[in-house]
Amino acid sequence: MITIGPSRPEDATPILRMAAAEPLFTAEEAECVEELLRDYFGRPDHNGYFFLTAWLEGKAAGFACYGPTALTRGTYDLYWIAVDRSFSRRGVGRALIARVEASVRERSGRLLVVETSGTAAYADTRAFYEGLGYERAATVPEFYGPGDDLVIYIRRL
Amino acid sequence: MITIGPSRPEDATPILRMAAAEPLFTAEEAECVEELLRDYFGRPDHNGYFFLTAWLEGKAAGFACYGPTALTRGTYDLYWIAVDRSFSRRGVGRALIARVEASVRERSGRLLVVETSGTAAYADTRAFYEGLGYERAATVPEFYGPGDDLVIYIRRL
Repeated sequence: MITIGPSRPEDATPILRMAAAEPLFTAEEAECVEELLRDYFGRPDHNGYFFLTAWLEGKAAGFACYGPTALTRGTYDLYWIAVDRSFSRRGVGRALIARVEASVRERSGRLLVVETSGTAAYADTRAFYEGLGYERAATVPEFYGPGDDLVIYIRRL
Repeated sequence: MITIGPSRPEDATPILRMAAAEPLFTAEEAECVEELLRDYFGRPDHNGYFFLTAWLEGKAAGFACYGPTALTRGTYDLYWIAVDRSFSRRGVGRALIARVEASVRERSGRLLVVETSGTAAYADTRAFYEGLGYERAATVPEFYGPGDDLVIYIRRL
Protein backbone atom coordinates (compact mmCIF):
# COMPACT_ATOMS: atom_id res chain seq x y z
CA MET A 1 0.00 0.00 0.00
CA ILE A 2 1.61 3.22 -1.21
CA THR A 3 0.92 6.37 0.79
CA ILE A 4 1.85 9.84 -0.42
CA GLY A 5 1.96 13.13 1.45
CA PRO A 6 3.65 16.52 1.48
CA SER A 7 7.31 16.06 2.38
CA ARG A 8 8.17 16.87 6.00
CA PRO A 9 11.55 18.13 7.26
CA GLU A 10 12.44 14.61 8.47
CA ASP A 11 11.99 13.35 4.86
CA ALA A 12 14.96 15.42 3.70
CA THR A 13 17.47 12.68 4.51
CA PRO A 14 15.74 9.89 2.55
CA ILE A 15 14.94 12.28 -0.33
CA LEU A 16 18.58 13.32 -0.62
CA ARG A 17 19.68 9.69 -0.35
CA MET A 18 17.32 8.73 -3.20
CA ALA A 19 18.47 11.68 -5.35
CA ALA A 20 22.13 10.78 -4.79
CA ALA A 21 21.48 7.08 -5.51
CA GLU A 22 19.42 7.63 -8.67
CA PRO A 23 21.69 6.49 -11.55
CA LEU A 24 20.06 8.88 -14.04
CA PHE A 25 20.81 11.99 -11.95
CA THR A 26 24.18 13.66 -12.37
CA ALA A 27 25.91 15.00 -9.26
CA GLU A 28 24.85 18.50 -10.39
CA GLU A 29 21.22 17.40 -10.64
CA ALA A 30 21.31 15.78 -7.18
CA GLU A 31 22.74 19.07 -5.83
CA CYS A 32 19.90 20.95 -7.53
CA VAL A 33 17.37 18.74 -5.69
CA GLU A 34 19.22 19.50 -2.45
CA GLU A 35 19.08 23.25 -3.07
CA LEU A 36 15.35 23.15 -3.88
CA LEU A 37 14.69 21.07 -0.80
CA ARG A 38 16.61 23.50 1.41
CA ASP A 39 14.58 26.41 0.01
CA TYR A 40 11.39 24.37 0.36
CA PHE A 41 11.87 23.77 4.07
CA GLY A 42 13.62 27.09 4.73
CA ARG A 43 11.05 29.50 3.36
CA PRO A 44 7.51 30.04 4.62
CA ASP A 45 6.18 30.13 1.04
CA HIS A 46 8.20 26.99 0.16
CA ASN A 47 9.74 29.14 -2.60
CA GLY A 48 6.78 28.26 -4.85
CA TYR A 49 7.60 24.54 -4.94
CA PHE A 50 5.89 21.45 -3.61
CA PHE A 51 7.58 18.23 -2.54
CA LEU A 52 5.77 14.94 -2.08
CA THR A 53 7.14 11.80 -0.44
CA ALA A 54 5.84 8.29 -1.25
CA TRP A 55 5.98 5.59 1.44
CA LEU A 56 5.83 1.83 1.00
CA GLU A 57 6.34 -0.82 3.68
CA GLY A 58 7.28 1.88 6.17
CA LYS A 59 10.09 3.23 4.00
CA ALA A 60 10.46 6.32 1.84
CA ALA A 61 10.14 4.86 -1.67
CA GLY A 62 10.10 7.95 -3.88
CA PHE A 63 9.58 11.69 -4.14
CA ALA A 64 8.37 14.31 -6.57
CA CYS A 65 8.89 18.08 -6.83
CA TYR A 66 6.63 20.36 -8.86
CA GLY A 67 5.42 23.92 -8.96
CA PRO A 68 3.80 26.66 -11.01
CA THR A 69 5.76 27.83 -14.06
CA ALA A 70 6.69 31.50 -13.81
CA LEU A 71 5.02 33.88 -16.26
CA THR A 72 2.37 31.38 -17.30
CA ARG A 73 -1.32 31.12 -16.46
CA GLY A 74 -2.11 27.68 -15.09
CA THR A 75 1.00 25.78 -16.21
CA TYR A 76 2.95 23.62 -13.75
CA ASP A 77 6.33 21.97 -14.13
CA LEU A 78 7.22 18.55 -12.75
CA TYR A 79 10.81 19.34 -11.78
CA TRP A 80 11.97 16.07 -10.24
CA ILE A 81 10.67 12.61 -9.65
CA ALA A 82 12.61 9.59 -8.46
CA VAL A 83 11.79 6.16 -7.09
CA ASP A 84 14.13 4.11 -4.93
CA ARG A 85 15.30 1.30 -7.25
CA SER A 86 14.58 -1.30 -4.57
CA PHE A 87 10.89 -0.37 -5.02
CA SER A 88 10.94 -0.48 -8.84
CA ARG A 89 7.89 -1.70 -10.74
CA ARG A 90 5.59 -1.40 -7.73
CA GLY A 91 3.62 1.59 -9.01
CA VAL A 92 5.36 4.25 -6.91
CA GLY A 93 6.15 6.53 -9.86
CA ARG A 94 2.65 6.18 -11.25
CA ALA A 95 1.13 6.96 -7.83
CA LEU A 96 3.35 10.04 -7.44
CA ILE A 97 2.36 11.36 -10.87
CA ALA A 98 -1.34 10.79 -10.11
CA ARG A 99 -0.98 12.77 -6.89
CA VAL A 100 0.91 15.60 -8.64
CA GLU A 101 -1.82 15.80 -11.30
CA ALA A 102 -4.55 15.85 -8.64
CA SER A 103 -2.76 18.61 -6.74
CA VAL A 104 -2.24 20.71 -9.87
CA ARG A 105 -5.93 20.31 -10.75
CA GLU A 106 -6.88 21.41 -7.22
CA ARG A 107 -4.81 24.56 -7.74
CA SER A 108 -6.66 25.23 -11.02
CA GLY A 109 -3.64 24.24 -13.10
CA ARG A 110 -4.51 23.30 -16.66
CA LEU A 111 -1.21 21.98 -18.03
CA LEU A 112 1.54 19.83 -16.53
CA VAL A 113 4.92 19.97 -18.32
CA VAL A 114 7.67 17.38 -17.96
CA GLU A 115 11.11 17.99 -19.42
CA THR A 116 13.30 14.97 -19.96
CA SER A 117 16.17 13.77 -22.07
CA GLY A 118 16.11 12.13 -25.50
CA THR A 119 19.10 9.86 -24.79
CA ALA A 120 18.93 6.04 -24.70
CA ALA A 121 19.46 6.15 -20.92
CA TYR A 122 16.08 7.88 -20.61
CA ALA A 123 14.15 5.45 -22.85
CA ASP A 124 12.33 3.92 -19.86
CA THR A 125 11.51 7.39 -18.54
CA ARG A 126 9.97 8.41 -21.87
CA ALA A 127 8.08 5.10 -22.08
CA PHE A 128 6.76 5.78 -18.57
CA TYR A 129 5.24 9.13 -19.55
CA GLU A 130 3.97 7.82 -22.88
CA GLY A 131 2.33 4.88 -21.07
CA LEU A 132 0.56 7.38 -18.83
CA GLY A 133 -0.83 9.17 -21.89
CA TYR A 134 1.51 12.15 -21.84
CA GLU A 135 1.80 13.92 -25.17
CA ARG A 136 5.28 14.33 -26.63
CA ALA A 137 4.86 17.99 -27.50
CA ALA A 138 8.32 19.14 -28.53
CA THR A 139 12.00 18.32 -28.93
CA VAL A 140 14.86 20.80 -28.71
CA PRO A 141 17.91 19.22 -30.35
CA GLU A 142 21.17 19.16 -28.36
CA PHE A 143 19.64 21.19 -25.53
CA TYR A 144 21.26 19.41 -22.59
CA GLY A 145 24.52 18.79 -24.42
CA PRO A 146 25.91 17.40 -27.68
CA GLY A 147 23.70 14.43 -28.61
CA ASP A 148 21.39 15.08 -25.67
CA ASP A 149 18.02 16.47 -26.76
CA LEU A 150 15.37 18.01 -24.55
CA VAL A 151 12.03 16.20 -24.90
CA ILE A 152 8.97 18.00 -23.55
CA TYR A 153 5.92 16.02 -22.50
CA ILE A 154 2.66 17.67 -21.58
CA ARG A 155 -0.59 16.63 -20.02
CA ARG A 156 -3.70 18.81 -20.27
CA LEU A 157 -5.59 18.63 -17.00
CA MET B 1 26.16 54.41 -34.59
CA ILE B 2 24.96 51.80 -32.08
CA THR B 3 27.25 51.00 -29.16
CA ILE B 4 26.69 48.08 -26.83
CA GLY B 5 28.28 47.27 -23.50
CA PRO B 6 27.68 45.45 -20.24
CA SER B 7 24.95 47.27 -18.32
CA ARG B 8 26.20 49.53 -15.50
CA PRO B 9 24.29 50.38 -12.33
CA GLU B 10 23.31 53.77 -13.79
CA ASP B 11 21.62 51.93 -16.71
CA ALA B 12 19.04 50.42 -14.34
CA THR B 13 16.70 53.41 -14.67
CA PRO B 14 16.52 53.43 -18.49
CA ILE B 15 16.32 49.61 -18.61
CA LEU B 16 13.38 49.58 -16.20
CA ARG B 17 11.77 52.43 -18.12
CA MET B 18 12.10 50.47 -21.40
CA ALA B 19 10.76 47.26 -19.80
CA ALA B 20 7.76 49.13 -18.36
CA ALA B 21 7.09 50.88 -21.68
CA GLU B 22 7.39 47.77 -23.87
CA PRO B 23 3.81 47.01 -24.99
CA LEU B 24 4.51 43.27 -25.32
CA PHE B 25 5.62 42.88 -21.70
CA THR B 26 2.98 42.27 -19.06
CA ALA B 27 3.37 44.02 -15.69
CA GLU B 28 4.52 40.66 -14.28
CA GLU B 29 7.18 40.36 -16.98
CA ALA B 30 8.44 43.92 -16.37
CA GLU B 31 8.69 43.04 -12.66
CA CYS B 32 10.66 39.94 -13.55
CA VAL B 33 13.16 42.11 -15.45
CA GLU B 34 13.40 44.36 -12.38
CA GLU B 35 14.08 41.41 -10.09
CA LEU B 36 16.79 40.01 -12.38
CA LEU B 37 18.37 43.43 -12.68
CA ARG B 38 18.43 43.86 -8.89
CA ASP B 39 20.13 40.46 -8.51
CA TYR B 40 22.50 41.30 -11.35
CA PHE B 41 23.79 44.46 -9.70
CA GLY B 42 23.43 43.17 -6.14
CA ARG B 43 25.47 39.99 -6.37
CA PRO B 44 29.18 39.70 -7.11
CA ASP B 45 28.56 36.76 -9.48
CA HIS B 46 25.70 38.68 -11.16
CA ASN B 47 23.54 35.66 -10.25
CA GLY B 48 24.72 33.93 -13.44
CA TYR B 49 23.10 36.52 -15.72
CA PHE B 50 24.45 39.10 -18.12
CA PHE B 51 22.81 42.39 -19.05
CA LEU B 52 23.78 44.46 -22.08
CA THR B 53 22.71 48.03 -22.83
CA ALA B 54 22.56 49.44 -26.38
CA TRP B 55 23.16 53.16 -26.93
CA LEU B 56 22.17 55.29 -29.90
CA GLU B 57 22.44 59.08 -30.21
CA GLY B 58 23.51 59.30 -26.57
CA LYS B 59 20.41 57.52 -25.30
CA ALA B 60 19.75 54.03 -23.98
CA ALA B 61 17.97 52.41 -26.93
CA GLY B 62 17.62 48.77 -25.83
CA PHE B 63 18.81 46.03 -23.54
CA ALA B 64 19.25 42.27 -23.48
CA CYS B 65 19.58 39.74 -20.66
CA TYR B 66 20.99 36.26 -21.15
CA GLY B 67 22.80 33.55 -19.24
CA PRO B 68 23.79 29.90 -19.11
CA THR B 69 20.92 27.42 -18.84
CA ALA B 70 21.13 25.39 -15.62
CA LEU B 71 21.89 21.67 -15.96
CA THR B 72 23.01 21.96 -19.59
CA ARG B 73 26.44 21.85 -21.16
CA GLY B 74 26.99 24.92 -23.33
CA THR B 75 23.38 26.10 -23.71
CA TYR B 76 22.43 29.73 -23.07
CA ASP B 77 19.03 31.36 -22.77
CA LEU B 78 18.16 34.80 -24.08
CA TYR B 79 15.81 35.82 -21.29
CA TRP B 80 14.84 39.34 -22.27
CA ILE B 81 15.41 41.75 -25.10
CA ALA B 82 13.64 45.04 -25.72
CA VAL B 83 14.20 48.07 -27.89
CA ASP B 84 12.83 51.51 -27.15
CA ARG B 85 10.05 51.98 -29.72
CA SER B 86 11.38 55.45 -30.62
CA PHE B 87 14.46 53.65 -31.99
CA SER B 88 12.50 51.00 -33.93
CA ARG B 89 13.84 49.71 -37.24
CA ARG B 90 17.33 51.13 -36.67
CA GLY B 91 19.06 47.77 -36.13
CA VAL B 92 19.25 47.96 -32.33
CA GLY B 93 17.68 44.52 -31.76
CA ARG B 94 19.84 42.95 -34.43
CA ALA B 95 22.98 44.51 -32.92
CA LEU B 96 22.03 43.29 -29.43
CA ILE B 97 21.48 39.74 -30.69
CA ALA B 98 24.82 39.77 -32.52
CA ARG B 99 26.56 40.87 -29.33
CA VAL B 100 24.78 38.20 -27.26
CA GLU B 101 25.81 35.52 -29.77
CA ALA B 102 29.43 36.73 -29.76
CA SER B 103 29.50 36.71 -25.97
CA VAL B 104 28.01 33.20 -25.77
CA ARG B 105 30.58 31.96 -28.30
CA GLU B 106 33.40 33.53 -26.24
CA ARG B 107 32.14 31.58 -23.23
CA SER B 108 32.22 28.36 -25.29
CA GLY B 109 28.44 28.25 -25.53
CA ARG B 110 27.18 26.09 -28.40
CA LEU B 111 23.45 26.79 -28.39
CA LEU B 112 21.36 29.92 -27.85
CA VAL B 113 17.69 29.35 -26.99
CA VAL B 114 14.95 31.95 -27.31
CA GLU B 115 11.48 31.34 -25.91
CA THR B 116 8.68 33.46 -27.25
CA SER B 117 4.94 33.41 -27.74
CA GLY B 118 2.94 32.02 -30.65
CA THR B 119 0.25 34.74 -30.46
CA ALA B 120 -0.47 37.26 -33.21
CA ALA B 121 0.97 40.03 -31.00
CA TYR B 122 4.37 38.31 -31.28
CA ALA B 123 4.32 37.86 -35.08
CA ASP B 124 6.96 40.58 -35.57
CA THR B 125 9.11 39.04 -32.85
CA ARG B 126 9.00 35.63 -34.52
CA ALA B 127 9.71 37.20 -37.93
CA PHE B 128 12.70 38.97 -36.35
CA TYR B 129 14.28 35.69 -35.18
CA GLU B 130 13.40 33.88 -38.40
CA GLY B 131 14.98 36.71 -40.41
CA LEU B 132 18.17 36.25 -38.39
CA GLY B 133 18.22 32.55 -39.32
CA TYR B 134 16.98 31.19 -36.02
CA GLU B 135 15.52 27.71 -36.26
CA ARG B 136 11.99 27.22 -34.97
CA ALA B 137 12.75 24.08 -32.99
CA ALA B 138 9.62 23.41 -30.98
CA THR B 139 6.14 24.53 -29.96
CA VAL B 140 4.43 23.71 -26.68
CA PRO B 141 0.69 24.30 -27.12
CA GLU B 142 -1.08 26.52 -24.56
CA PHE B 143 2.09 26.84 -22.46
CA TYR B 144 1.76 30.51 -21.47
CA GLY B 145 -2.02 30.37 -21.24
CA PRO B 146 -5.13 29.31 -23.15
CA GLY B 147 -4.42 30.06 -26.83
CA ASP B 148 -0.88 31.21 -26.03
CA ASP B 149 1.74 28.70 -27.23
CA LEU B 150 5.40 28.65 -26.34
CA VAL B 151 7.61 28.81 -29.45
CA ILE B 152 11.25 27.87 -28.99
CA TYR B 153 13.86 29.20 -31.39
CA ILE B 154 17.44 27.99 -31.36
CA ARG B 155 20.70 29.02 -32.94
CA ARG B 156 23.66 26.68 -33.02
CA LEU B 157 26.83 28.70 -32.45
